[in-house]
Amino acid sequence: MENLKYEKGNLLILDQRLLPNEEKWIEIKTKEQAYDAIKSLMVRGAPAIGIFAGYAMALFAENSDIYNLKNYLDSSRPTAVNLSWATKRIVDAYEEKRSLIEEAKKIHHENIEMCRKISEYGLSLLNHGDSILTHCNAGELAASRYGTGLGPVLLGCEKGYDFKVFCDETRPLLQGARLTSYELEKAGADVTLICDNMASLVMKKGLINAVLVGCDRIAANGDTANKIGTSGTAILAKYYNIPFYVLGPYSTVDFSLKSGDDIVIEERDSDEIKNLYFEKPVALKKTKCFNPAFDVTDHSLITAIITDKGIIKPPYDVHLKEALK
Amino acid sequence: MENLKYEKGNLLILDQRLLPNEEKWIEIKTKEQAYDAIKSLMVRGAPAIGIFAGYAMALFAENSDIYNLKNYLDSSRPTAVNLSWATKRIVDAYEEKRSLIEEAKKIHHENIEMCRKISEYGLSLLNHGDSILTHCNAGELAASRYGTGLGPVLLGCEKGYDFKVFCDETRPLLQGARLTSYELEKAGADVTLICDNMASLVMKKGLINAVLVGCDRIAANGDTANKIGTSGTAILAKYYNIPFYVLGPYSTVDFSLKSGDDIVIEERDSDEIKNLYFEKPVALKKTKCFNPAFDVTDHSLITAIITDKGIIKPPYDVHLKEALK
Repeated sequence: MENLKYEKGNLLILDQRLLPNEEKWIEIKTKEQAYDAIKSLMVRGAPAIGIFAGYAMALFAENSDIYNLKNYLDSSRPTAVNLSWATKRIVDAYEEKRSLIEEAKKIHHENIEMCRKISEYGLSLLNHGDSILTHCNAGELAASRYGTGLGPVLLGCEKGYDFKVFCDETRPLLQGARLTSYELEKAGADVTLICDNMASLVMKKGLINAVLVGCDRIAANGDTANKIGTSGTAILAKYYNIPFYVLGPYSTVDFSLKSGDDIVIEERDSDEIKNLYFEKPVALKKTKCFNPAFDVTDHSLITAIITDKGIIKPPYDVHLKEALK
Repeated sequence: MENLKYEKGNLLILDQRLLPNEEKWIEIKTKEQAYDAIKSLMVRGAPAIGIFAGYAMALFAENSDIYNLKNYLDSSRPTAVNLSWATKRIVDAYEEKRSLIEEAKKIHHENIEMCRKISEYGLSLLNHGDSILTHCNAGELAASRYGTGLGPVLLGCEKGYDFKVFCDETRPLLQGARLTSYELEKAGADVTLICDNMASLVMKKGLINAVLVGCDRIAANGDTANKIGTSGTAILAKYYNIPFYVLGPYSTVDFSLKSGDDIVIEERDSDEIKNLYFEKPVALKKTKCFNPAFDVTDHSLITAIITDKGIIKPPYDVHLKEALK
């Protein structure tokens, strides 16, 4: 499942908002289109946003001030660290007079390699026949081949691990239903879709051996921002004594943040809760909604953080730094 | 917010499936219509189902074998104890040669009195300005005046308590969005709608002083079946050290059930997760769903059970029985 193509100077992305009903590719021709593609979730998933932003920077720097362009694209979504990390790499290449498009391709290829490593490390923690719960989408659509949070599952499927996967639908944007269950069906996995609030029952019934999720930003102490609902799932996993694994590129660790309290959480529009996807509004027009896009999972709830630099276990304030060496 | 009218031999119910977009009243003329009204959730909420089933029994017994009629209506939804409890009361009246319709009216009036008591007991545990989280709908639409789980909030609103209410949307059938936020808006409350998976963040931010929910069946040890997602919310409340109150008629206690393990959980159709309410399907046709309508909250997670016989605290195996006296 590819989410992006760069061919002969043209940047194309799969409009993920239309899945699973339509696979439509869109050519991105301007920086405004690039900004909107991220903001509107046409492209989403922290690693995928980074890859896309790299290409967008390289393509549109020529007609813009590159520093303004970086600030502009960075402002499209505040929570994922990969976005500003990728745009900075293109700025660095610019300052060092290297090819911007080669740097963008490098980010992309490194991501594929990184996902493969994460998937292999993650798979080493799982057993044949395991039943996995996942939240949101951290598969190939959110990154590159295999993905991050879903990487061990997709890699394991290829290797005949016979996983059974429970997939939270992930309200309000339904990435679990629309994207993860779709990707897993395409990979031939045994997938069961549930509503987010059914995870407790599924865990209680003993149906889950491990929870696997991606991440958007990790603080120095291991506190992790990921899709809204992740922290609740982690609390349930702790209660039911089920391992809870966070998977993502090591570059997701932001040592400038002491703890999750320092992570800025994006709030999105009420319409996503009340109107989007629905045939008719599900609440009155005047009804207030609170729509945070992410939450922070306390490090004490995380069994291990699985990165391209290996499996990192608590205490995270020590081991996250050690992995850098 | 009335959900049922009995006038001059005619039984009318508000089709709750159409809320908040339409207030449509339907006349129930046959036992098949009554069965479908419960099964399809036109009428829902454990106490409201009981009231409705009482009238339906009284009206349609004349042209049926009353024992068959009871079994037929009881089979429309397996989890709520109030259904078979109400149909049995009409059978008892029949066997004692009392008026069936008077017995149905009595069930209805007792319910109003019962809701008032629950609401008053519940309100005694809350403070002016409290911020309350509620899941699903246990207000007037689910019962009668004031409701059960939402009763203290609606009563408190009348008395100027200035509550702030966070309302889980309650997937898959969105009773929290469609019904609870609607009822609260109509009552002039300060309501904020959230997705179920946002409860953890809202609690973490210190925005919740108490969680209030209804119940469909309570086992002798205090384990409580309620709308799917309730058990997860209770685990979060425990984690964040927030009181978690279950509210319902004392008749919800089923002493024939030793623990929650004995409670039958209704499983409903996949379409409710993938298609219902949505403009387009949110997952592939072939994708499996697991759609349990209820879950069981362990008694250890419940701060108090608030009934018309008073506030019952742990140990529930002792105190639930004591309240009977």
